[in-house]
Amino acid sequence: MQVYLDNAATTKVDREVVLEMNKFMSEIYGNSSSIHSFGREALKHVDSARNSIASHFNALPSEIFFTSGGTESDNWAIKGVVNSAKQQVKHIIISKIEHPAVLETCDLLEKQGVLITRLDVDKFGMINLDELKRSINDNTLLVSIMFANNEIGTIQPIKEIGEICKKEGVLFHTDAVQAIDTQDIDVNYLNIDLMSFSSHKFYGPKGIGALYKRSGVKITPLISGGHQERGERAGTTPVELIVGMAKALDICAKNRFEINAKKIELRDNFIDKVLKNIPYTYLNGHKKKRLPGNINISFEFIEGESLLMMLDLFGIAVSSGSACASGALEASHVISALGVKEELAHSSIRFSMSKDTTIEEMNYVYEQLVIAVERLRKLSPLYIAT
Amino acid sequence: MQVYLDNAATTKVDREVVLEMNKFMSEIYGNSSSIHSFGREALKHVDSARNSIASHFNALPSEIFFTSGGTESDNWAIKGVVNSAKQQVKHIIISKIEHPAVLETCDLLEKQGVLITRLDVDKFGMINLDELKRSINDNTLLVSIMFANNEIGTIQPIKEIGEICKKEGVLFHTDAVQAIDTQDIDVNYLNIDLMSFSSHKFYGPKGIGALYKRSGVKITPLISGGHQERGERAGTTPVELIVGMAKALDICAKNRFEINAKKIELRDNFIDKVLKNIPYTYLNGHKKKRLPGNINISFEFIEGESLLMMLDLFGIAVSSGSACASGALEASHVISALGVKEELAHSSIRFSMSKDTTIEEMNYVYEQLVIAVERLRKLSPLYIAT
Repeated sequence: MQVYLDNAATTKVDREVVLEMNKFMSEIYGNSSSIHSFGREALKHVDSARNSIASHFNALPSEIFFTSGGTESDNWAIKGVVNSAKQQVKHIIISKIEHPAVLETCDLLEKQGVLITRLDVDKFGMINLDELKRSINDNTLLVSIMFANNEIGTIQPIKEIGEICKKEGVLFHTDAVQAIDTQDIDVNYLNIDLMSFSSHKFYGPKGIGALYKRSGVKITPLISGGHQERGERAGTTPVELIVGMAKALDICAKNRFEINAKKIELRDNFIDKVLKNIPYTYLNGHKKKRLPGNINISFEFIEGESLLMMLDLFGIAVSSGSACASGALEASHVISALGVKEELAHSSIRFSMSKDTTIEEMNYVYEQLVIAVERLRKLSPLYIAT
Repeated sequence: MQVYLDNAATTKVDREVVLEMNKFMSEIYGNSSSIHSFGREALKHVDSARNSIASHFNALPSEIFFTSGGTESDNWAIKGVVNSAKQQVKHIIISKIEHPAVLETCDLLEKQGVLITRLDVDKFGMINLDELKRSINDNTLLVSIMFANNEIGTIQPIKEIGEICKKEGVLFHTDAVQAIDTQDIDVNYLNIDLMSFSSHKFYGPKGIGALYKRSGVKITPLISGGHQERGERAGTTPVELIVGMAKALDICAKNRFEINAKKIELRDNFIDKVLKNIPYTYLNGHKKKRLPGNINISFEFIEGESLLMMLDLFGIAVSSGSACASGALEASHVISALGVKEELAHSSIRFSMSKDTTIEEMNYVYEQLVIAVERLRKLSPLYIAT
C-alpha cells in the first residue's frame, strides 16, 4: 500500500484540472496580451479565472495579481510595502513561526535597516493579541501573520488580527498558502489587505499563485517589464496555469464542508489513538484550532527523520519539518518556538491528509507507525534507559 | 483556414511536452524538496531536466536556475548584479531595442542612481561594437544586450560582444528568449555570463524559464525564502513545468537544422514576394542576420493595428509591436530606434513562424495580405494622394 500523507508539501493535481490545462496548452494557446482572436480567446479565460478566484474570497477581480506562487507573493507583499513607503524608519511585525518566505525576506530587510518585531507564540502556536497591539507603533507599516501554520496547522485569530490592524491603521498581510482548500476566507470580513496563496497546495499545478491586494494599497513591483497584471507584475501571463488554479479552487470550494468534516474525524481519531497507545508521544499545535488535514506529533527518543525514512520504506510519505526546510539539520523553528525541548522538536513528524485520504489509509499508517516507532526505540539508548 | 503566425509572442505546447507534464501532475507529483520516495522521484527528474537543459548550452547543471520566465530572469540578472556590487557608482550598458523587462528594469535602477547607457542601433537593428567598447568604463558592471530582437528578429554579434566584455572584465547578460529554438548557443564559446530564457517561446509551457548564471558570478536573490535552487531562488520547484521545458528544448534541438532551413526559405520567399508585389512596403531588421521565423514589414499608409485586425478576420494571427507592449499607443520603440519615420513605425507587422508553419499557410497569408492591404489603402487619404 502506498499512502501519500505529505499534502502540506504539495498535492496531486486534480484530474479535471489537468484536462483543463491540456486544453489551454494544445488549443487555446494564445498569449493573452495579443490582440488577435487567439489572444482575445485566451484573455477571456484569464479574465473569467480571475473573476472566479476573486469571488471565492469576496475580492474584486482587479485585486487579484497572478504570481509564480506563495513565495513570490510573500516577497512581493513585504518588499513592496517597504519599498513604496516614504518614511525614514520602517517597522514590520511578524511571528516567529512564519514561513521561510516571510522570515528570510524580513531578515534581509532587517540588514537594510528595517525594524522587525518577531512575535512569540504560545505552546499551541498562537500569537498573543495583546503583544501584537503593544508592538504596533507609529513606524509600523505592516503586520504579516500566516493564516495557518504549515508544520503544526495552527490557525491564527485572523479576524482579530485584521481588526487590530484596521484600527491601528497598519496594513495586514497573511500568508494563506496552507489555508485555501479548507478555510472560508472573506478578505473584507477578515480585514485582510494582502494575501498570498499557491495553487499546488490545493490540487492545482505548481508554479502559479497569486497575491490578493486590496484596492488602494500601494506596493512597488518586484518584477518589472511588460504591462501584464495592470503593470504591477510583468511577464507573459501563464494562461494554462491560471485556468488550472481557478478550476482547482472551484473544486475545493464545492465540497469543502464535507471534506473538512471527514478530515477532522480522521485527524482526531488518529491523534487520539497515537497519544493513547504509543507512549511518549505529544501533539504539536492546537487540538481544535488546527487545519483539518494536519497532524503533527513528537515521538520522544526518536529522530523524526529516521521515522520518516522507515515509514517511507513502508510506502508512507510524511514529513519532518517543512519541505522548504528539508535538508536542514537544525530543529524546526516552528516546533522550537512552541517552547518544546530540543529533543522533542527533533522527533516531530507531520502527517498531512488530502481530500481523498481514506480511513483505510489512516489505519494502515497507524499500524505501520506502531511498528516503526517500536523498532526505532529499541535502537535508542535513551529509551532503553526509561 | 486558421494560421497562427505569432509564435514570437507564444507557441503551442508540443504534444509530447503536454503528455510528459501530465505524468508529473498525476503520478510523479511529489515536492522535489521532500525526502521521501515521492520527493526523491520528483527530484531525480528535476536533476535530469537540469542536466539536459545545461548540456544544450554547454553549461554546468549548477549554472541553471529555474525561474517563472524570461522577465523574472531579466529582472533577477540585472537587479541582482547591481544589488550585489559594493561600489558607489554603478554603470550598466544596454541597447535601445531591449525587451521591456530589461528597459523598464533599467529605468527603475536609473531612478535609484544607477547610470545607464542605452546604445543606438543601425538601420538593421545592430549595435555598434566600437560604441560598446567606448561606453565601457571603470564603473561598468554589466552589459545586457539581447541575443535576437523580439520584434524585428535581428541577431546581435553575440560572440564579439562576449569577447569585448571578457576583455574589459565586465559581466555580459543576454536576453536569449527569442533565440533558444533556432540558435546554437554555447555559453562558453560566446563568453556569456548570464542568459535569460523562457519555455513558452519554444513549444513548452508558460510560467517557466531559467537564468543561466556562470559559476562564480555573484548576484543577490530576487525572491528569498526556502533553500530551492541552491538558496538563490526560493519557491516550490515547479516539477511539471521544468520537465516540460526540458522536453521542449530536446525536441527543438533535434531538428533544429532542418527546421531553420525550411523557415528561412519560407521567410525569404515571403519577404521577396511582398516587397516586390506590394508597393510601399519595407522590411524592418536585417535581411540575413535575422531569426529564421521572423518577418517584419512596414506597410506605408496603413496602421499596423488595422492590418492586424483585418488579417484576424481572415483567420490569420500576426502582431504589431510585441505582445508585451500591445495596447500601447506609441510606435514600437524598436522600429523607432531603426531611424524609420514615425508613420512607418506605426505601420509595421510581425509575422512569426513556428516549426510547423507550411508553405500552404504562407501562401494563404500572402494572398489575404494583398487583399487586406489593398482594402485598407483604399481608405487612406494619404495613399490616394500618391
